[in-house]
Amino acid sequence: MTVKAYGANAADQPLQAMDITRRAPGPRDVQVEIAFCGVCHSDLHTVRSEWGGTKYPCVPGHEIVGHVSALGADARGFKIGDTVGVGCLVGSCQQCAACDEGLEQYCENGFTGTYNGATADAPGHTLGGYAQRIVVDENFVLHIRHPEAQLAAVAPLLCAGITTYSPLRHWNAGPGKKVGIVGIGGLGHMGIKIAHAMGAHVVAFTTSDGKRQDAHDLGADEVVISRDAAQMQAHAGSFDLILDTVAASHDLDAFSSLLKRDGTLVLVGVPEHAHPSPNVGNLIFKRRAIAGSLIGGIAETQEMLDFCAQHGLVADIEMIAARDIDKAYDRMVHSDVKYRFVIDSATL
Amino acid sequence: MTVKAYGANAADQPLQAMDITRRAPGPRDVQVEIAFCGVCHSDLHTVRSEWGGTKYPCVPGHEIVGHVSALGADARGFKIGDTVGVGCLVGSCQQCAACDEGLEQYCENGFTGTYNGATADAPGHTLGGYAQRIVVDENFVLHIRHPEAQLAAVAPLLCAGITTYSPLRHWNAGPGKKVGIVGIGGLGHMGIKIAHAMGAHVVAFTTSDGKRQDAHDLGADEVVISRDAAQMQAHAGSFDLILDTVAASHDLDAFSSLLKRDGTLVLVGVPEHAHPSPNVGNLIFKRRAIAGSLIGGIAETQEMLDFCAQHGLVADIEMIAARDIDKAYDRMVHSDVKYRFVIDSATL
Repeated sequence: MTVKAYGANAADQPLQAMDITRRAPGPRDVQVEIAFCGVCHSDLHTVRSEWGGTKYPCVPGHEIVGHVSALGADARGFKIGDTVGVGCLVGSCQQCAACDEGLEQYCENGFTGTYNGATADAPGHTLGGYAQRIVVDENFVLHIRHPEAQLAAVAPLLCAGITTYSPLRHWNAGPGKKVGIVGIGGLGHMGIKIAHAMGAHVVAFTTSDGKRQDAHDLGADEVVISRDAAQMQAHAGSFDLILDTVAASHDLDAFSSLLKRDGTLVLVGVPEHAHPSPNVGNLIFKRRAIAGSLIGGIAETQEMLDFCAQHGLVADIEMIAARDIDKAYDRMVHSDVKYRFVIDSATL
Repeated sequence: MTVKAYGANAADQPLQAMDITRRAPGPRDVQVEIAFCGVCHSDLHTVRSEWGGTKYPCVPGHEIVGHVSALGADARGFKIGDTVGVGCLVGSCQQCAACDEGLEQYCENGFTGTYNGATADAPGHTLGGYAQRIVVDENFVLHIRHPEAQLAAVAPLLCAGITTYSPLRHWNAGPGKKVGIVGIGGLGHMGIKIAHAMGAHVVAFTTSDGKRQDAHDLGADEVVISRDAAQMQAHAGSFDLILDTVAASHDLDAFSSLLKRDGTLVLVGVPEHAHPSPNVGNLIFKRRAIAGSLIGGIAETQEMLDFCAQHGLVADIEMIAARDIDKAYDRMVHSDVKYRFVIDSATL
């Protein structure tokens, strides 16, 4: 079947309306009418082939929410009309140790991304959520239990939400823990909300004094301007966990030195240019660690969605029409969004 | 009291015989007649002020073994004639959270090093184990339960042994775990022995094919020549833990990429020049970590000594006379020692 979508035919071309095909639902598939799709930095990097390896036509989008419109005979976890989400993954081997543990994002045979992943479907690579409809193996479809009126603002949870929830949970953010969130953007603003809801003492780090009140409103107990050495020094050696959402190359020592003994600095973004080499003494003298974390598994994504529904958490969004995606990308590059663009799929 | 020692009066001078003073034992002190003292890379770095901040005269040495010759009235843990050891620490605040947990090496108020640490004793900084005698607070004195004939080879356990034992234990080396040890020198050769005794599957990494048989003899199940990309690739994604004992600047990605999901690369040496900045994607895509670890606490050092005594583990050593320390330093710089020099204190 043919559905309307928005994508690019080459790295140097703007996104444009296009028709794409979706497979008819197989026995275990769920067909989703997409209501909204969040706009992630990865969309921009991929569609412009900034990481290389992009296949065209490229239809980005992996923060997808909508409603079930058809089901395979064996897709027993859903029913027509269910409100559902699809995140960054639409497939994995389902057989390796990682998949067995529900950590499909670390699938040892390689997960299938929601866009630009290998697939038997035409055109040979997956096409994402900037589209009217998507067909996905039910193992990769999430239930959404938020009120319907919040649906657009739920979309960014499928990537920005789980990318921050998973490390916060893995490294035990919660009551009695002091947790830092570096960067107040699409990921960071969700990190602040989620860490606060988990009961941690949350400190937001930003280079921009203009985001101070916002950070407090999002749930930060304290806000530190990271360019201010005295403010930073006041927090030396005090954090259990710092979640660094900034992908641009920056000084990690400024944050690792704020960790307690046995604390962890978790990176969730791959910088285009390497960070300055971290100070090894900073790690050795307090048994600190620098770690990485990638999105989250399907079971944990469902847990995150339910946690957010229970705590009334959604993203702060700005809704856009499909025709404005390129303008939104340009604004996103300049951090000119509070805090996530979401495409209204009705405008496709 | 005056005792004979070997030390340097300036960074650019060779070590020479000198007389130093030791305090009379206070109520909680243990006076130790030093039998042997291991020679650690840190001794060389400090005596030559390669890290800066060295106070002179400088008497290095923090791998000390000997026998109790006098006791303070309240030093109840020891008796005259006991075989004992003193490692890298001779003091800490005993009041902070780290000290409360027996992690004096991470004392929040700064531990007192066995040499070059601040002290009320003359000359205002601590003087180490290249000496006939030392007087130490009993809280920093260890019991040695190895056979007396092994005493010289026990000395290096006080630094090289605990520096490898502590991270191996902290990151759960043991049966069913695949553990890498990078570098087969003073630290690495103990790391291999200890990891093997803990029951782990041990892989030794060396740049030198000439150390292959040695590594097997030390207890390595496999030996990988780290300059051989094919040998390295064969171990991709397979390690639970890699303990990197090489302080010289080197490529960490070659080792982080060998870790399983959730694996940890632990660094125990501070490089003079920074390592190349580690690849963040390597961390993110497998939730790996790069961490640091510093020696070990007193309780853990005792545990390590008892573990080594129980498993018959000592260092492989080459005994030297005090007058040969400078020559030994030069050989150590060229990795020309299997695997630790130990000074016979009778030659002072």
